[in-house]
Amino acid sequence: MAVGLDEPDRLEAVPGIAWGTARAGLRKRGGDDLAVAELAEGAVVAAVFTRNAFAAAPVLVARRHLAMSEARILVVNAGNANAATGIQGVQDAEAVCSEAARLAECPASAVLPFSTGVIGEPLPVDAIREALPRAWAARAADGWLAAARAIMTTDTVPKGASRTLTVGGRRITVTGIAKGAGMIRPDMATMLAFVATDAALSRTQAQAMLEEAVAESFHCITVDGDTSTNDAAVLVATGASGVEIGPGDAAQRRLREAVTAVCRELAQAIVRDGEGATRFVTVEVEGGRDEAECRAVAFTVAQSPLVKTALFAGDPNWGRIVAAVGRAGLADLDPGGVDVAVNGVWVVRAGGRARDYREEDGVRAMAEPEVTIRIRLARGEARARVWTTDLSHDYVRINAEYRT
Amino acid sequence: MAVGLDEPDRLEAVPGIAWGTARAGLRKRGGDDLAVAELAEGAVVAAVFTRNAFAAAPVLVARRHLAMSEARILVVNAGNANAATGIQGVQDAEAVCSEAARLAECPASAVLPFSTGVIGEPLPVDAIREALPRAWAARAADGWLAAARAIMTTDTVPKGASRTLTVGGRRITVTGIAKGAGMIRPDMATMLAFVATDAALSRTQAQAMLEEAVAESFHCITVDGDTSTNDAAVLVATGASGVEIGPGDAAQRRLREAVTAVCRELAQAIVRDGEGATRFVTVEVEGGRDEAECRAVAFTVAQSPLVKTALFAGDPNWGRIVAAVGRAGLADLDPGGVDVAVNGVWVVRAGGRARDYREEDGVRAMAEPEVTIRIRLARGEARARVWTTDLSHDYVRINAEYRT
Repeated sequence: MAVGLDEPDRLEAVPGIAWGTARAGLRKRGGDDLAVAELAEGAVVAAVFTRNAFAAAPVLVARRHLAMSEARILVVNAGNANAATGIQGVQDAEAVCSEAARLAECPASAVLPFSTGVIGEPLPVDAIREALPRAWAARAADGWLAAARAIMTTDTVPKGASRTLTVGGRRITVTGIAKGAGMIRPDMATMLAFVATDAALSRTQAQAMLEEAVAESFHCITVDGDTSTNDAAVLVATGASGVEIGPGDAAQRRLREAVTAVCRELAQAIVRDGEGATRFVTVEVEGGRDEAECRAVAFTVAQSPLVKTALFAGDPNWGRIVAAVGRAGLADLDPGGVDVAVNGVWVVRAGGRARDYREEDGVRAMAEPEVTIRIRLARGEARARVWTTDLSHDYVRINAEYRT
Repeated sequence: MAVGLDEPDRLEAVPGIAWGTARAGLRKRGGDDLAVAELAEGAVVAAVFTRNAFAAAPVLVARRHLAMSEARILVVNAGNANAATGIQGVQDAEAVCSEAARLAECPASAVLPFSTGVIGEPLPVDAIREALPRAWAARAADGWLAAARAIMTTDTVPKGASRTLTVGGRRITVTGIAKGAGMIRPDMATMLAFVATDAALSRTQAQAMLEEAVAESFHCITVDGDTSTNDAAVLVATGASGVEIGPGDAAQRRLREAVTAVCRELAQAIVRDGEGATRFVTVEVEGGRDEAECRAVAFTVAQSPLVKTALFAGDPNWGRIVAAVGRAGLADLDPGGVDVAVNGVWVVRAGGRARDYREEDGVRAMAEPEVTIRIRLARGEARARVWTTDLSHDYVRINAEYRT
């Protein structure tokens, strides 16, 4: 049950990229589970990958290929992460790339592989090889939604977002899709995001734009900016619009905002579809000495199992919130300076229950499916914001039954 | 449902300390919820308290009293943590101390207050004052088990342990009780432990002995050595045996081992009675460069919701274990050096599925209620060990319903 999240109405095609999908049979749930994207010649590809020491085989291969060649093809499978699969995993990812390269008549190093699903099982290469020609044949400019569906694992809703802007009288499109629903910590092979624009960017511009967008979106839904074995976010700038964006242009700022907006919408969609989520929770921390300490507080609160179960229960148990603030590791934190509001109701002032706070107001504030916890630290000007979910019975059920 | 944990058969009395209990009506669950200990004159008291910035009022008062006077009385209530209660909370804790001091005919600063239960509610001082004389009148040398019961909150089993040793032909006893069941992170007002011995120790000796015991017990069941708003562990050396333990004596080492053994048994009991626990899990990490990184890996694995839900399911999902190892933040970790065994079955060797590993062996290994996850890092000689539980439906139920 995703919180306030529906299938995207419409994902705008991006000239210069076409997606095709097919069923390889890797994912137990039916439907296509293999997606292929063809990128126009000259497309620029930027990517950020997991920092997990156990980076999955497709991550290792994609990183290497990206350094060797211009990417022309993305291949994504759901149902198997090809992670913790050693040398065999790398050979398997390369075999998938070879087959895609054969179809696309390009070098194997121009293919970037991505996998999501169970960790530690060998990748069923033959099934992927068999399905690839069908996915390739199906590629179409309007294939985004089909691709968003194909890359789902425990997701209940396909995730996508589009923005358009006009630069010099010409329309530019930014469209992205993502998958991911293992939320509290994305330490399952969880998060993949593919964003494309038809603006023309240099590799350096595209990489900077992607990193900034990721910092303000996907990194606000993870632990310490932590990423899983397979996490990857990709930005493709096809250039097919013919609109060149110069470094430092006003247009660059607007495009960056559009890319960030798409990534933020995707990141929030991942939270809204968080495993077992019944609430969409925003934790805003302000008045910190620097952003890092605001993030530390926000993440400590957002990840506290006790805060999350109270959110599930709709219980304004602010004591658990201040206890989490108190253990976030801030030096010399003065509890007497801490205020906490839940959906606009100030429950804590100066470190204790607010004088005018009434339990029934707290209960009413917590009754909403969207909850904002606002925390003021009164020791500086910095702020940070993260998004999370509650911790429900269904989270346990989903993750206890994932392989069975 | 505690895992492999029964009520203590027998808790040895410790000459020089007597516990009495009564019902003040603070805890919804019936039974006594107030405990008082009288310490013999000359008893030495050591204590360690939470490092949470929101230290509860009783912690503030106990710390101050300990610095002012020799402690003669411990007063512990369940049902209300008197945490995040501001100035009023401190006055309330002091009022409780005054009443105890009146009964014991000692200065109020000789009374140490402890509270556990809901955070952020005013302490019902009148109810405690009313019940105190009855608890005081009931004090007895064999009151340990009654006290262990009185301090329970969500605990399902009272927790206690005893050890005896002989020094110079004379018997010395070490007995302790503890409460705590909010397990994954003790960030509810969770953990209290009271340990006493009739050996004679200096304050310095007692403090060092307690800190060492806590490091090897209670700090192995918390996040980053993190403690909640109310956590406290106390060691009382009554000296009533007349056996003086000199610094550096062989007897000191043996007593320290006994105190550590009592604390470890209590710490493990807290885990075994962890909220919703269906498994008792030991995570052993070896081959690290230093203890800190071994602890980082052990805690990252032990706290991963995905590992914990897999443990609940009895699912040998080792991919989640290696993914947790991979994001523990170790510099230059070579995944190829990582081995993982579950109850003696090597499921991961050299960073991937062990060649001879069969899924049915893993399932059998995980079927036990007690699971040891052993992780080898192959980069040094250091090791660490932590204890934890699985994450079950009942954890969510207990914490979602705690106040309702």
